[in-house]
Amino acid sequence: MSVTAPEGFVAAGVACGIKASGEPDLALVATADGAPVSAAGVFTSNRAPAAPVQVSRAHLATTAGRAAGVVLSSGNANAATGPEGIAAAERMCALAGEGIGARAEEVLVCQTGLIGVPLPTAPLETGIPALVAARAGGRRAAADAARAIMTTDTVPKEVVVRAPGFSVGGMAKGAAMLAPDMATMLAVLTTDASCPPDALLSALRRAVAETFNRMSVDGCTSTNDTVVVLASGAAGARSGAAHSEMTVDAGDLTTALTDACDQLASMMAGDAEGATTVLRVVVDGAASDADAHQAARRVAGSLLVKCSINGGDPYWGRVVSELGSAGVAFDPDAVQVAYGDVVVCRGGVAAPHDAAVLATYMKGPSIEVRCDLGLGAGRGAVLGTDLGHGYIDENRTTS
Amino acid sequence: MSVTAPEGFVAAGVACGIKASGEPDLALVATADGAPVSAAGVFTSNRAPAAPVQVSRAHLATTAGRAAGVVLSSGNANAATGPEGIAAAERMCALAGEGIGARAEEVLVCQTGLIGVPLPTAPLETGIPALVAARAGGRRAAADAARAIMTTDTVPKEVVVRAPGFSVGGMAKGAAMLAPDMATMLAVLTTDASCPPDALLSALRRAVAETFNRMSVDGCTSTNDTVVVLASGAAGARSGAAHSEMTVDAGDLTTALTDACDQLASMMAGDAEGATTVLRVVVDGAASDADAHQAARRVAGSLLVKCSINGGDPYWGRVVSELGSAGVAFDPDAVQVAYGDVVVCRGGVAAPHDAAVLATYMKGPSIEVRCDLGLGAGRGAVLGTDLGHGYIDENRTTS
Repeated sequence: MSVTAPEGFVAAGVACGIKASGEPDLALVATADGAPVSAAGVFTSNRAPAAPVQVSRAHLATTAGRAAGVVLSSGNANAATGPEGIAAAERMCALAGEGIGARAEEVLVCQTGLIGVPLPTAPLETGIPALVAARAGGRRAAADAARAIMTTDTVPKEVVVRAPGFSVGGMAKGAAMLAPDMATMLAVLTTDASCPPDALLSALRRAVAETFNRMSVDGCTSTNDTVVVLASGAAGARSGAAHSEMTVDAGDLTTALTDACDQLASMMAGDAEGATTVLRVVVDGAASDADAHQAARRVAGSLLVKCSINGGDPYWGRVVSELGSAGVAFDPDAVQVAYGDVVVCRGGVAAPHDAAVLATYMKGPSIEVRCDLGLGAGRGAVLGTDLGHGYIDENRTTS
Repeated sequence: MSVTAPEGFVAAGVACGIKASGEPDLALVATADGAPVSAAGVFTSNRAPAAPVQVSRAHLATTAGRAAGVVLSSGNANAATGPEGIAAAERMCALAGEGIGARAEEVLVCQTGLIGVPLPTAPLETGIPALVAARAGGRRAAADAARAIMTTDTVPKEVVVRAPGFSVGGMAKGAAMLAPDMATMLAVLTTDASCPPDALLSALRRAVAETFNRMSVDGCTSTNDTVVVLASGAAGARSGAAHSEMTVDAGDLTTALTDACDQLASMMAGDAEGATTVLRVVVDGAASDADAHQAARRVAGSLLVKCSINGGDPYWGRVVSELGSAGVAFDPDAVQVAYGDVVVCRGGVAAPHDAAVLATYMKGPSIEVRCDLGLGAGRGAVLGTDLGHGYIDENRTTS
């Protein structure tokens, strides 16, 4: 039941008419009593941030990291929409706050969909009160919320992680515009851990860096990327602690958030637009971890490598070429490349291998390309996908 | 007649059996008398350079910028082939040099094709002597050479530029792995201008920076990129000047080389694998020219923008999103985007426009996306293509 699994949260999802299809397009995740709790957010690095990103950032700054809820909509990104877009995002927060008994600035807002199209506000005036009225705890409410943030996603994405003394729940959407340098997607996480805002932000940043920012579907960083987390403190309250008191181990919290984000990231890669194969690129033996990640990102983002994966063709020459142009320390005579366990290139040249075993491996739903640069102890991995007709078909027109 | 148009050059193209198809796969461009002349090369920035790149670089260093010819092969990149690959590339130079009466180090070598496959050397032992025997001046010889370097190119690419007192000829191949940061292709240029090696290299570098390095088909920088130029000095010799004496205006030479490279780059974009539309992204009003180029490269390289162009969909929101994530100075409220002359976004939001005029423009064979960042006087342009099924079909398997 994802976001409502941790104690102290309610959720809802309804259709208000932003999506012409009539599919659910409004979601809410809020504290059960409407009281503000510790909150943190990580946002897109895009310099054309959407209105909801600007508004959520401002709200978290105003409240010094406290929020009572998150209102989300799909079907229109409310990006490149000017002052009217900002006013519309603020209005969403005001309407949701009014409903749950919180101030507007105690509500965060996330939106996803088409960029550059003015957001219709009429549906929100009736839709958000209906959304608030529908809020409830339990599996059904969480599922409704997760479904209402989908765009080209084919399945809703939900996760629950149990940790010592607390739990983390999460939901996310994301199907294209998925690239490192911030997750390029929306995710809302909840936890009943008790934790001050700064520690929560620090844990969230580490979790995002290790998961969503290690993913590349198409190298596009959207205008709307947002990951937010609310910490109800309900698990701490059981032991009499105040909201802002840290009652869990900071390491445990980071681990649980990272685990939740990692599962959501894998779901996103598995459901990426038009993708048929999940591609994981692991780089070992780099001069540094930073080099390893940069090289893995280059390989995972390569159109030619992605096409090869789509065709089930273990053309490692392209992998070596991408490693060589990744801008990292590289010795062409030291590199090794394997698909799964099958080493196809050793010392920079073709290595004898069992072609039948390799052919079988290449037909799998998930391919791991393992590179060893033979230079040092740097290690990194990036999650990606193949590139097939489906991606193009999804993205050639918006109509 | 391209490379043989300038005085003092011969060319040839034959089939030797590197390509299983039996298509021409060996080419030669050489001075008519086999004497070394001023030569310069610009090579891939890939840290896994192919054997021919390593050999050509070494030869130019040994001779201090003199060469008598270039031997080229297609069908096998001779990249990631280890010491055997280097030996094979050296052997090609030795065989060609023997035939034309030059030392091995006076011959440059370019190769293109599959990476990581050992180069068969037997075909070269008979093929190169046959190639040398076939060398001739005139249109036919140049066309044979241009055809012999094709891989997935659908048409040979040749150019002749006439300048005051001299001319420039050129041939090139390139269909994928086309990205800025070196041309990601092979090109051989010839001129009858008389010019010392250092001035020739300087002119070539400027020409490449303005043309091949302003192109992006798939963001992949190959292991084999090479652009070389030979200057016979034949035009200078008419006035009694020595080879190494500069008898042409340096600016004229740069302009003529740039013009030749620009024409070859346009041919490459027009013939890019699977492309149906040439995409030119122009960025004006950036804080600097460097910012403008970086932003234009980001837009031209965006999978989502490329898919939109493939679908004829003027989805400018993606253009704004890419500009915002290009890592350059950017004000979302100042940006303007137009397709051709039709402004679709002004001040960062949707601008009213004639949809019918725009729809007609989007159906053209060539689309110009014009962005104005509204910040300064920086200007830059990048040539790219759409992304369609054809690119994937060409690249999913090598067999």
